Amino acid sequence: MSVHNLTEMSLDEIYQLAHKVMGVAGCDAANAAAIADTVMRAERDGSTSHGLFRIPGYVGSIKSGKVTADAHPTFEQNLASVLKVDGQMGYAPLALQQGLPKLADAAHQTGIAVMSIVNSFHFAALWPETEYLAEQGLVGLACTAFKPSVAPFGAKTAFFGTNPLSFAFPNPGANPYVFDMATSRLAKGDVQIAARDGHELPADTGLDAAGNPSTDPNEVLKGVLLPFGGYKGSAIATMVELLCAGVTGDNFSVEAGRQDNNDGGPAKGGELVIAISPELISSGDWKTHVAGFFAEMKGLDGIRLAGERRHKNRQDTGPRQINSALIETINSLL
Amino acid sequence: MSVHNLTEMSLDEIYQLAHKVMGVAGCDAANAAAIADTVMRAERDGSTSHGLFRIPGYVGSIKSGKVTADAHPTFEQNLASVLKVDGQMGYAPLALQQGLPKLADAAHQTGIAVMSIVNSFHFAALWPETEYLAEQGLVGLACTAFKPSVAPFGAKTAFFGTNPLSFAFPNPGANPYVFDMATSRLAKGDVQIAARDGHELPADTGLDAAGNPSTDPNEVLKGVLLPFGGYKGSAIATMVELLCAGVTGDNFSVEAGRQDNNDGGPAKGGELVIAISPELISSGDWKTHVAGFFAEMKGLDGIRLAGERRHKNRQDTGPRQINSALIETINSLL
Repeated sequence: MSVHNLTEMSLDEIYQLAHKVMGVAGCDAANAAAIADTVMRAERDGSTSHGLFRIPGYVGSIKSGKVTADAHPTFEQNLASVLKVDGQMGYAPLALQQGLPKLADAAHQTGIAVMSIVNSFHFAALWPETEYLAEQGLVGLACTAFKPSVAPFGAKTAFFGTNPLSFAFPNPGANPYVFDMATSRLAKGDVQIAARDGHELPADTGLDAAGNPSTDPNEVLKGVLLPFGGYKGSAIATMVELLCAGVTGDNFSVEAGRQDNNDGGPAKGGELVIAISPELISSGDWKTHVAGFFAEMKGLDGIRLAGERRHKNRQDTGPRQINSALIETINSLL
Repeated sequence: MSVHNLTEMSLDEIYQLAHKVMGVAGCDAANAAAIADTVMRAERDGSTSHGLFRIPGYVGSIKSGKVTADAHPTFEQNLASVLKVDGQMGYAPLALQQGLPKLADAAHQTGIAVMSIVNSFHFAALWPETEYLAEQGLVGLACTAFKPSVAPFGAKTAFFGTNPLSFAFPNPGANPYVFDMATSRLAKGDVQIAARDGHELPADTGLDAAGNPSTDPNEVLKGVLLPFGGYKGSAIATMVELLCAGVTGDNFSVEAGRQDNNDGGPAKGGELVIAISPELISSGDWKTHVAGFFAEMKGLDGIRLAGERRHKNRQDTGPRQINSALIETINSLL
């Protein structure tokens, strides 16, 4: 076990630090604010792996010339239900901040709409997208790919990214149901932590360099991860590739892997976000119907609804404990 | 191991038998033809559990008064992207046969469209829906619920149905990629077969009546099934409930379980089918892009693309081997 020194920072201090360092890196105010907001909300909700921890990567990909710090996304909506976003080689948060309200408007008018983002760099969680839609009374589905680290079921070669899939559904009168999951059995970060702490991995997490199943995190780090849930999870990972790259036209994970300069930041990729209006589709009173479902599910012993932990963390508006070494690293970028 | 006597039947004979028995049960020509076509295609593709095996259930739910044999679905399309189908308490095949071309037309025009089916009884696989869309150059996603037999991850009570999810994507120049999977670890039929044949179940298939994990199929049949892939698969099963019942307004699995008369046929439920046009969304030449992805994935050692086995079975236009006792049972319904 390693021991970390921790420093207390308020949510506003977290936001301000992120905003400042992104500004120094070359972001204009709009991009710095969108990234800082994404980072602050991750820390707020306890999703620390998507918080300040990402700042060195965000800065690194600007320094390497891969990402345009002051890019402004462009929007095209020739069809009422299709919002095409070109990130202009910038980071995703600004494209999402500007695009999501347009997507929600479209779905409220047409019943179902899709936002396709290309030429963008996504380095955050996906639940902010889908949760936003659920807060507007819409179903949200979002997915993106990454560089290959996961072997399809039956294979021994990295081909999929950890390919997250997020889904949110409004729970009328309560917080929305929101999941956001890697389609690998474990995230790479979890394997690195197991290696650091000397823990064995759960079965089916990965293969060693020779392609044999291993529960040793050090061996799996030399090999590949596996999808969750065997061939079914592998099918879900394939679906993510096809939605976020096949539909958008941006990189499949293997293409991102070949193209990326490995500067520690995210690879260029596409994201697909779908919004659906139960209000315009349901044959009945969807709010009562859905609230009843969630209430009954929550009444089962042993059940926690997806997203509850994040919403609970969010109620605490006090300071967060941030790794002091990380703060030092970020300060060195100022 | 039990031994079955088998009888050879041509695909046309399978169709004619199904058509005839559904007619005798009260179906008009349109419903009989749609069901017979669904049954014949299942046998053709090797999906025997959705073939003639279903006929006694189809007939039983008409006899019990639950399903209207000669119902004709109604269609409402007030929004270009939303097709609302009321099955009028009939079987799903006719609603799908009539609705899918309308859904495809809508998606070709608007980029993304959804078909919501309610008051319908679905007793077949879902790949015919999604594969049809993929054959039209569209992405297809379909899901439906069923009566509860699966405990959400962490719980010990049946709450989800086996909740199938099907997804198809066109593979330009080749057969589409199509998966159709139960979101339970195994289908109930697989557990029954394991019990019959004295085989142990894979781990994580189900719980016994006391709520403890068991690999004994006889014990799991007294208890509940589990979702595939732990909490992630459980999230996918929840997503299916929310799409096919929360969005459509028809029964969640628990509601279907309370309402159904358990006559051996399907429970009333909703189905949601989404169609997306990569042609109208992709920023580039999606056909070349996607064909390249599938070719590269197929080139990996150990990989078979989802749907390949069905397409291979389909090439054989010769007779199929049908369980003789099943044919006898069906003939007794004439």
